[in-house]
This record gives sequence, C-alpha cells and structure tokens, in this order.
Amino acid sequence: MFNTVLHQLADPGNVGMILRAHAAFGGNRLILTGNEKPFTLNKKFRNTSRSMYKHIPIDEFATFADFKEQYASQNAHIIGIEITEEAINLPEFSFPENSFLVLGSERFGLPDEVIEQCDSIVKIPHYGQVGSMNVAMAASIAMYECTRGKQGIKPVYNRMYNFKSK
Amino acid sequence: MFNTVLHQLADPGNVGMILRAHAAFGGNRLILTGNEKPFTLNKKFRNTSRSMYKHIPIDEFATFADFKEQYASQNAHIIGIEITEEAINLPEFSFPENSFLVLGSERFGLPDEVIEQCDSIVKIPHYGQVGSMNVAMAASIAMYECTRGKQGIKPVYNRMYNFKSK
Repeated sequence: MFNTVLHQLADPGNVGMILRAHAAFGGNRLILTGNEKPFTLNKKFRNTSRSMYKHIPIDEFATFADFKEQYASQNAHIIGIEITEEAINLPEFSFPENSFLVLGSERFGLPDEVIEQCDSIVKIPHYGQVGSMNVAMAASIAMYECTRGKQGIKPVYNRMYNFKSK
Repeated sequence: MFNTVLHQLADPGNVGMILRAHAAFGGNRLILTGNEKPFTLNKKFRNTSRSMYKHIPIDEFATFADFKEQYASQNAHIIGIEITEEAINLPEFSFPENSFLVLGSERFGLPDEVIEQCDSIVKIPHYGQVGSMNVAMAASIAMYECTRGKQGIKPVYNRMYNFKSK
C-alpha cells in the first residue's frame, strides 16, 4: 500500500488528476504539505478527481517536517520523485511496503530541504531532446512502477472503463 | 522509436500534456485521427504542450482507417491502450521496434472498430476499488513502459528539471 505526498502543488487540476490515479492504483492516503493557505477542494479539483476525494483520506500539513514528524514512527519510507545527480533510475528501484511518493510543485519541483528529508530519491528516465513532464503524469508513472511488481495483488479491470469520465 | 496516435480526443489540454510527455520520452510522430473538425493548436494546447509542437511532427487523418492505410507499408505495430477482456497486461507486453500507441477519447475510450484494427491491445493494471484514469496519464504510463527496457539508449537527465514549466 502506497501513499502520495504533494508538496506545494498550485494547480487544483493536477491535484485532482493525481488523486484519481492514486485511487485507481489502490493508494492509501493523499497528503498535502507546504501550502501557504490550506488547499481548497474547489470545483476544478472535484471534477478532475472524479469525486475520488470522497473515497481517499486527505491530510494536510503546514510544512513537510510536520508531515515527517507525524509519520516517522510508522516505518514510513519517503521517496522523492525528482531529477538529481544521485537519484536512482525508477525502473531499478524497489518500492518498500509502506512507501510515500513525494512530488513537488509545478514550477520548482522538490526544494533541497525536502530532498534532504527523503529516504530515497528516484528519477523517471527521459529519452527525448527535451525532458520535461507534467507533475500528474510523473506521479502516475511512479504509482504504476510502485504497484506493477506487487505479488499477490490481483489487478482490477472490470469496474469501469479506463478513460471514461462518468 | 515509438509514435503516439490520439483518436477523437476532445480536450486540447490532454493533447498538449500527451505531446509534452511524448517529446520527453523521445517519441517520433504524433498522429490525430477521427476528429470531425481538424484539431486546433489553440492556446491551451500550446501551453500544456510547453511548445513541443515546434519539435514534434504532427499528422492528422479524418479516420483511423486513413491513418492505417498510410502507415501499413512501414512495419508499423499498432497497439491500442484499452481495457478489454483479451488485452495483455502492460507490464508483460514487449513493445516492438516501430510501435504506435493508440489512445481513445476521454469519454468513450477506443471504439470497437478501432480496436479491431489494432495489432495488439494492452491494459494498465489498476488495484483500486475505482479504476479510472485520465487519458494523458494512461498515455504517459504506456510511453514509460515502452521505453523503459530499451537497450542501448541512454536516458537524458541533465537538460531540464522534471516538472519545471519554463
């Protein structure tokens, strides 16, 4: 079971899409950190999440350190998704049982002080001449890789078509 | 080298995000099929694509059959991303050299007549109680899996941060 942590995300549409994928991949909690004002569950968020906020517990912390303190005792493994020199290549990373996938803001990614607080940093390999990706797509790729190798869990296919809105 | 085919996508924001990921993963052509009116490269598309339309060739065909006819002689392997009973589980699928990843509209996914024209159908495993995903995220996961195992290609990390907009 994984959890998703979003640090200083600004676009409710991105948060909504991430929550939708988080639910599809069987994620546990969604955690929001570092926003100046509490995150608003506005219409754009509700629509892009396909109302998944009704099914997934959402926690919010003023700072990333507050989140860490809360979960430190629970064997949490905190994994930043970011491009750094030392980051592990995503296909080569084995996600521990209680993984927290951490993604940073649309404009700045993960700041250094958050990277320093992570247990591992993982990067998504790009092969193009221009390597840039929407944060929601990076999040969904990390969730896919985090769950793809899970033994003993049976994928669910029959409840809804893949891309249907309603 | 893969190509991406979008059948009847309605939201320019989704097409833009997909083009951005397509470029990041080193995709060749972006192909649009089945739209009643030619797709407009409007502001939302240009912004969400991060101007990648300047770097990636975009083709448009009135029907999926027109696209197939054009590419039939080029050893194209056409792979529909959709949930069907016979679809192959994405982690178990080996992408051939000249793959065309085909994704369907936000509301209806891939229609039967397109599925019948594909060489393979592949599905993304979900583990949640509610299995639904934005088409752009499904596309990016397919691109990731299509490129992750490529031998002899070196990933590119140093050009731009992961999620930066500019």
